[in-house]
Amino acid sequence: MLHKNRLFTPGPTPLLPAAQTAMASFTAHHRTADFKALFQRVLADMKEFIGTKNDVLVLACSGTGVMEASVSNLTSPGDKVLVLTAGKFGERWTGLAKAFGCNVDVLSVPYGETFLLENIRARVTPDVRAVFVQATESSTGARHDVQGIAKIVRTQGNDTLLVVDAITGLGTTHLDVDGWGVDVIIGGSQKALMMPPGLAYCAVSERAWKRMDATTSPRFYFDLRKERKSAAKGETAYTPATSLFAALGAALEFVRGMGKGDLAKGREELVNNAELCAEMTRAGAKALGLKLYSSAPAAALTAISAPDGVDSGKIVKEFRESFDAVVANGQGEMKGKLFRIAHIGYYDYLDTIGILGALEHVLARVTDRSVEYGASVRAAQQVYARSHDVALAAR
Amino acid sequence: MLHKNRLFTPGPTPLLPAAQTAMASFTAHHRTADFKALFQRVLADMKEFIGTKNDVLVLACSGTGVMEASVSNLTSPGDKVLVLTAGKFGERWTGLAKAFGCNVDVLSVPYGETFLLENIRARVTPDVRAVFVQATESSTGARHDVQGIAKIVRTQGNDTLLVVDAITGLGTTHLDVDGWGVDVIIGGSQKALMMPPGLAYCAVSERAWKRMDATTSPRFYFDLRKERKSAAKGETAYTPATSLFAALGAALEFVRGMGKGDLAKGREELVNNAELCAEMTRAGAKALGLKLYSSAPAAALTAISAPDGVDSGKIVKEFRESFDAVVANGQGEMKGKLFRIAHIGYYDYLDTIGILGALEHVLARVTDRSVEYGASVRAAQQVYARSHDVALAAR
Repeated sequence: MLHKNRLFTPGPTPLLPAAQTAMASFTAHHRTADFKALFQRVLADMKEFIGTKNDVLVLACSGTGVMEASVSNLTSPGDKVLVLTAGKFGERWTGLAKAFGCNVDVLSVPYGETFLLENIRARVTPDVRAVFVQATESSTGARHDVQGIAKIVRTQGNDTLLVVDAITGLGTTHLDVDGWGVDVIIGGSQKALMMPPGLAYCAVSERAWKRMDATTSPRFYFDLRKERKSAAKGETAYTPATSLFAALGAALEFVRGMGKGDLAKGREELVNNAELCAEMTRAGAKALGLKLYSSAPAAALTAISAPDGVDSGKIVKEFRESFDAVVANGQGEMKGKLFRIAHIGYYDYLDTIGILGALEHVLARVTDRSVEYGASVRAAQQVYARSHDVALAAR
Repeated sequence: MLHKNRLFTPGPTPLLPAAQTAMASFTAHHRTADFKALFQRVLADMKEFIGTKNDVLVLACSGTGVMEASVSNLTSPGDKVLVLTAGKFGERWTGLAKAFGCNVDVLSVPYGETFLLENIRARVTPDVRAVFVQATESSTGARHDVQGIAKIVRTQGNDTLLVVDAITGLGTTHLDVDGWGVDVIIGGSQKALMMPPGLAYCAVSERAWKRMDATTSPRFYFDLRKERKSAAKGETAYTPATSLFAALGAALEFVRGMGKGDLAKGREELVNNAELCAEMTRAGAKALGLKLYSSAPAAALTAISAPDGVDSGKIVKEFRESFDAVVANGQGEMKGKLFRIAHIGYYDYLDTIGILGALEHVLARVTDRSVEYGASVRAAQQVYARSHDVALAAR
């Protein structure tokens, strides 16, 4: 059978066609009025997409680059920081903070779980200079309570900064960045904005900008104050990834279209879409007797535990070989134990129903259990129908 | 919810990404060695795609242009021709033959049906100069027995030419053009070759080339002998649609890849894919209590009768509004009575399962019957699973 190659991975995600054509056709030099206009429009739109009045910077790097920037710009060697970790991306915070000589307090919960707020409350003391966390932990499919965490940091901290890796969280999670007092929020292009990897971005609070005047960790390419100064003049400090800016401009227009001209509303629509795809997928997985890996599942992706005695690598391989559908295996110690189906960005009803249909064949092949064809699809359809009726009633 | 715009229409069909990028990036002038090389490679590959040793021509027009060419090049005013018609495209043959002054004998069957060979046998007399028919009648979803018809023409005719509109048939139907003795077979770019409209092609037998020496109908742009002479020199008579040639080259490479390097085998794979998508769709429709419009359903598309008392336009509209999925209404008198879901070219398992899932919601919305969610999907999955097991056993 013919197979279209489709990504169901939590990044890179399926590309928006309008972003592809914008990227392919863009040729302007970066020190021109044309690029400057695009750059300024994108930065302004990114504020609306993120939902903040804080300055937004867009850098040529992957998400980890801006994670590093938030460590190197906001801390000095020896600073006490708190890392909240529940998976491979939480562990990346620990690695980064240690690399820059921070005194790292690590609060970790087992893979698949999220934090109890009371445990965080016990660790946020006034001497903690920054708290690092994920909005959604892409390695386990868990969702963290950013609002709850922010409240603790703002209440118990003393000028303590809250840095949130929302690389898979932006566009899949309702976040009130300014209202909750998130100091740095981080995103990446190959996620809900439906573009290839290559750009990462952050919104930075005034409190965080002020911190940078005193911090001493070494940084150069990722010097956010330098980027901020350049951005005020309508340019970047170093050569920007111009074609990806063009794609980002197109992606933001698409999101604005989803909100019928209102970008903030479009972002909420995008989040609702991920929530619905995720709810359909969870219902579908459960209908097949599968267990979710996370006790607090995110809308960005659904991590599903492999059935007992089955290596999830076999499931991933079967999806690829029989359908050319790329789903993600577990990472690190989770490899073989779970597989991950993403809902970040450019997914719709047909994608969701299609991958669940395929999952039924995959399960029938890699396990000896009998699979009732249509069972997961039906469960997902029931979720969709309930949501659709609500949407219709609201028309 | 986010909706991807998807075509399930029997042309235009979903575009192959590699064809899109080839088309977008092609800039060569048409009177250059670069274009000549592309042109000659495409014409050679087209023979393999069509499955013929006859000369193939590719013209800048839609399929109707080459239908006209086959009338204007192969007949003279007053010639007796037989048109076999079972729908809107059969009727187009009648219109064309009359426009060029032929003495047209029309053998028609009701919409949705195909011909009894004995009725054709009674009409093919030695004085019939040409027989015009469709391989698949896209307006009704019917498949005609080209092999059986060819046998009659070759046996009972006297130098009678058989002209087959295989615009939706090529790449969806197993055809032995040379073995059966089809004189002219016609295709179009926006069908199984997964490209936009703008090119149409035909393969022409020696018998047909010989006929052109004597025919007197007026033609200029569509003069096939002039195109043949130009093609022998590696060029077209008039300006070719260069970017579409680039797309066609990429599409043919894709089909070759489906055959693991063998283009003819790839074409058979493409046909098998359409056959399987169609069988899944027919099973899905029946599982919902729907009736197929045609008694002889083609693999190119499935025409489904609207349930009693429901205008199929409502179904088409609901597919579009709720899922941004474009399915075709009936044409002419069939408008309102049926809707058509295509399987031509670039479709796969996920598309097929997705559109059937959507169909269940659409039916629930436009009828007052209760729909069992997952029922049509399950029926399609059972068809897929049976076919897949056969494929696996053959691995």
